[in-house]
Amino acid sequence: MNVGFLGLGLIGASLACALRDRPEINDLIGYGHRPSTIDVALSLGIIDRAVEQPEHLLDCCDVLVIATPTLLAQQQMVHLVGIAETMESPPILTDVASVKGNLWRAIEAMELPAWPEYVVLGHPIAGSERSGVHAANPKLFVDHRVILTPHEGNSAGAVQCVEKLWQWAGADVISMPVELHDKVLAATSHLPHMLAYSLVDTLAQSDLSLDIFRYAAGGFRDFTRIASSDPVMWRDIALANKDEVLNAIDTFSSGLAGLRAAIADSDGEQMMAIFERAKSSRDTFVVKQNSKKDETNGV
Amino acid sequence: MNVGFLGLGLIGASLACALRDRPEINDLIGYGHRPSTIDVALSLGIIDRAVEQPEHLLDCCDVLVIATPTLLAQQQMVHLVGIAETMESPPILTDVASVKGNLWRAIEAMELPAWPEYVVLGHPIAGSERSGVHAANPKLFVDHRVILTPHEGNSAGAVQCVEKLWQWAGADVISMPVELHDKVLAATSHLPHMLAYSLVDTLAQSDLSLDIFRYAAGGFRDFTRIASSDPVMWRDIALANKDEVLNAIDTFSSGLAGLRAAIADSDGEQMMAIFERAKSSRDTFVVKQNSKKDETNGV
Repeated sequence: MNVGFLGLGLIGASLACALRDRPEINDLIGYGHRPSTIDVALSLGIIDRAVEQPEHLLDCCDVLVIATPTLLAQQQMVHLVGIAETMESPPILTDVASVKGNLWRAIEAMELPAWPEYVVLGHPIAGSERSGVHAANPKLFVDHRVILTPHEGNSAGAVQCVEKLWQWAGADVISMPVELHDKVLAATSHLPHMLAYSLVDTLAQSDLSLDIFRYAAGGFRDFTRIASSDPVMWRDIALANKDEVLNAIDTFSSGLAGLRAAIADSDGEQMMAIFERAKSSRDTFVVKQNSKKDETNGV
Repeated sequence: MNVGFLGLGLIGASLACALRDRPEINDLIGYGHRPSTIDVALSLGIIDRAVEQPEHLLDCCDVLVIATPTLLAQQQMVHLVGIAETMESPPILTDVASVKGNLWRAIEAMELPAWPEYVVLGHPIAGSERSGVHAANPKLFVDHRVILTPHEGNSAGAVQCVEKLWQWAGADVISMPVELHDKVLAATSHLPHMLAYSLVDTLAQSDLSLDIFRYAAGGFRDFTRIASSDPVMWRDIALANKDEVLNAIDTFSSGLAGLRAAIADSDGEQMMAIFERAKSSRDTFVVKQNSKKDETNGV
């Protein structure tokens, strides 16, 4: 099996590294927008060869993984599906973007006779605040979840093939409806990133910013780790999942307003209720996570 | 030198452990509200002996560390200063509370003839989401900052003695005005705790809470770690530093409203400006921290 990678950032390059030694894999073939990325990927042996244009991957791959930022992935998916629809046996097309609804809607908007059975949308719940081909890590997906949002028009073979690819990389693959994916990820990932970015930016603009960053300690470092994530990636995610991200911000803001009111009223009982519910939920979540896997990585 | 501990939770017990082998220290003497805490502290050798009442520590100690939650520490400080004022040579009194202004104002409200020269307020910038005597860690303060907020009425000897105590525990001791301490800590510590508690509590009450916690990954775990902190401690901090915490929440909320507006307007440029400023500040902060010390612990 030949696997193609459109984009060789952290996720694409890590998946290529993870598949490198699988006996099922023949060639790993890449396309990167920047020549320097391709040079690094070739010299590190992350891919076997490169193509000059993204669409060339359609001709030489059995599976093509689009691993670019969310909005670019959407454009590229539409472009590639347009070409694939003219092919007798197109390769399986999948992606790794953090939002799935925008891709789903963009394909529907193509008004094809039917959903292209070879297009299986996916999202690995793994990452790092580091980005780029240099951050590639073959263990990135081990014991991490990959969420697929299959369409009823998908061929069973295409879904199974994408499942296999991720299982070979060590991931635990599950499926869910596309709307549920985007709601849940807005709450657990997109919202926390917006809060962390907004907090650090607000503090950086304070008159006291020098003192603030000088005297901040470990808790602040952990809380704001995700504010070191790639800005382009997160701009795209917020735009692609705009409605759910706005809903999540609004729900959070009304919760925070409730806590603010309790503090302003010196209502210790209400504060205790909020803090205890939060601690109990978070402790339970961590216990469940730890029983499944170690605590080494993941976004 | 005999050192007394009023309260043997994470901070008090960790400081006792850190001082255990110092040649300057004679006896470590404790008072704990719960008999079970004292039993554990004695059996683990964290303290040498215990007293029956907090005020008994005044008679047998050279330095007395109040290490109870913020509001209780305030009551106890006022109570102990009231007795100490009647003593010919009272011990040095210090504390470890996360807010300093409430203690400062409570002592001023006693309307003593002058600031009690033996009272030196302090705050170690270290901790853990774990709490209690069992969490004691002799390395907790190593390479961590301790902020003292000395009063102009303090004796130089009292300030130096408290500095020494923390330096013996491996900490880096600095001083700052009490108002600056409470503003900076509101921004870097109290606000992030309020945001983390509020986020986890809001998500826990969502219709999708089961899915949310099931599919959350490492980034969410780090972002919400501080929501596992002790609720009583954080209720007290928010009440004791109410004005600064409310200011910090309001400043954050208006920053978040700005980001929300950028997302709602699909204003990618504005979003990039916010994300890039945040990433740059946070990356710089981490580089500076790493050049100083390792990344092992700290709140």
